[in-house]
Amino acid sequence: MTNFNVSCPIPLDQYPQVLLAHGGGGKLMQQLLEKMIFPAFKTTQNIPPHDSAVVNLNANKIAFTTDSYVIHPLFFPGGDIGSLAINGTVNDLAMSGARPCYLSVGFILEEGLPMETLWNVVQSLQNAAQIAQVEIITGDTKVVDRGKGDGVFINTAGVGMVEHNQIIAPQSVQPGDAILINGDLGRHGIAIMAVREGLEFETTIESDCAPLHSLVLAMLEAGITIHCLRDLTRGGLASALNEIAMGAGVILNIQENAISVREDVQGACEILGFDPLYVANEGRFVAFIPQDSVDTTLKIMRSHQQNPCIIGQVTGRGTGMGLVTLESKIGANRIVDMLSGEQLPRIC
Amino acid sequence: MTNFNVSCPIPLDQYPQVLLAHGGGGKLMQQLLEKMIFPAFKTTQNIPPHDSAVVNLNANKIAFTTDSYVIHPLFFPGGDIGSLAINGTVNDLAMSGARPCYLSVGFILEEGLPMETLWNVVQSLQNAAQIAQVEIITGDTKVVDRGKGDGVFINTAGVGMVEHNQIIAPQSVQPGDAILINGDLGRHGIAIMAVREGLEFETTIESDCAPLHSLVLAMLEAGITIHCLRDLTRGGLASALNEIAMGAGVILNIQENAISVREDVQGACEILGFDPLYVANEGRFVAFIPQDSVDTTLKIMRSHQQNPCIIGQVTGRGTGMGLVTLESKIGANRIVDMLSGEQLPRIC
Repeated sequence: MTNFNVSCPIPLDQYPQVLLAHGGGGKLMQQLLEKMIFPAFKTTQNIPPHDSAVVNLNANKIAFTTDSYVIHPLFFPGGDIGSLAINGTVNDLAMSGARPCYLSVGFILEEGLPMETLWNVVQSLQNAAQIAQVEIITGDTKVVDRGKGDGVFINTAGVGMVEHNQIIAPQSVQPGDAILINGDLGRHGIAIMAVREGLEFETTIESDCAPLHSLVLAMLEAGITIHCLRDLTRGGLASALNEIAMGAGVILNIQENAISVREDVQGACEILGFDPLYVANEGRFVAFIPQDSVDTTLKIMRSHQQNPCIIGQVTGRGTGMGLVTLESKIGANRIVDMLSGEQLPRIC
Repeated sequence: MTNFNVSCPIPLDQYPQVLLAHGGGGKLMQQLLEKMIFPAFKTTQNIPPHDSAVVNLNANKIAFTTDSYVIHPLFFPGGDIGSLAINGTVNDLAMSGARPCYLSVGFILEEGLPMETLWNVVQSLQNAAQIAQVEIITGDTKVVDRGKGDGVFINTAGVGMVEHNQIIAPQSVQPGDAILINGDLGRHGIAIMAVREGLEFETTIESDCAPLHSLVLAMLEAGITIHCLRDLTRGGLASALNEIAMGAGVILNIQENAISVREDVQGACEILGFDPLYVANEGRFVAFIPQDSVDTTLKIMRSHQQNPCIIGQVTGRGTGMGLVTLESKIGANRIVDMLSGEQLPRIC
């Protein structure tokens, strides 16, 4: 959890909790917006962020995405719902190779939420937006009655500029493409589960939550051909690869040996009965890259303080379908399927 | 409630309710998306709407807005959460004079929600988007555990093209401007309250929920100078006028006689103890227009099947503040303040 030293601009002795009226369109809502939300999200555009915002955008192509964040608990080692709501949406734009520009933030607050919790979340949003160099230019605040929500849900939508002419999508994936990951797997999911289950490890496992757009933009600027990118959130690596294999109609083979999982994360997965291939991440992505660009990609990833590895390749076209196979540490091959049910609810 | 005759694409005997796994990133979520969500939101862009979408946009200026919809009940006379989620966000774009183009939809579903309810909401979103001629190009679905949500919450964000060079905002408001409304007040709020309270009137009061962008674009195409627009949602006319008066630093005077409230709505307001000036609408807006454009504006509004009225004017500059006064039917003047608390929770 980030530590912020600015005291809450709403008097906590008077309003220790969020009231229904804070979403009612009257004076209390206006006070909340003007004292807490607008100053935190003040942008170069000078627009109160609760109106429709009009901004300049010099691009012929834009990327547009949205995600709602319902993570439980709100604060966890390495992040909180605020930083997650920025980085998650920034990363969705980055996966199209877009330059993230503008974000919207929609709060759904539960009556009775401690005002200080909201303030911490708002500061975290602000902080994460500054780090990712995106501007929050529009927003909305709703309050639902006690027992009809769970503290804070946040939706962010994002608009980015697309400055390249590549089609970064499953349909561009080709047999022969190398599959790269930018680091180790499973930290976000395990960090959340450790807090939920009250587990203590020798070291604190922190979420890998981080913005990825600088790295992707650096790859594009270096002239690398990128066939597909996908961040490894809900459902983890296994789900992302299956989605791409199906979308592209190809067969992927990955090597278990090549996939990096930290020892403490591996240990926690064993205790909890999780397979790290399915555990959520918030700062990891796979990249499908033609073989002749692999070395440059690895070099750029490393220069961005990432620890990339080549985990496999596209071995061929599927016959009207997609398939993901894994060569295990002892050399056996097995199919990596999508999860049928639910591994970790409310992980993001 | 709209009647749809297409049967639910998810087998209801197998999945009568939404499960946590429908948001878990695995097979069940994929089935929900591929069978129900993607086909409903199929766009000309041919993008699965759960990725970041890359689209062409030939504009130097865009409008960007967001709103979360937490209305209770989900279905009401004249609309439902689906049509509201489209029209509300389309209207926020329209209030900047933008041409609404692309929408995102984020669902937060509560475990146990009847699958058929979700299907009805999805069809309503689809239907309203077609009517408003906007495309839903990206989305997200989350599921929270039972008792941590309330059926369905929807967030929509919208991107519109700004093709004019006017600054349609409170700071453009000038003394002398006429204040126009495009119809009668209070129907949305009263429609909701009637369902909630189980009230029956001789006639059903239907929400005024409707998209407003065609009308606004027609005004701009006719060359009308528009100083400010604001839709009259949460907090109603009184809150919208107060916000504009404060933002512009002006004094507004409105005439009670000129404001149209249907007799059944007025009667319901009296029973419920509401002042129609504060009741929410979803198809009404105020326009601040220079006097020389008033006749043209009225004509265009009428050609769009609206019943506009001039309700007052900007009488002067405030001394560092804004003020809204109302001349009552008997000729007395009173200040119209913002609501301090909460009149109608979860009205939108």
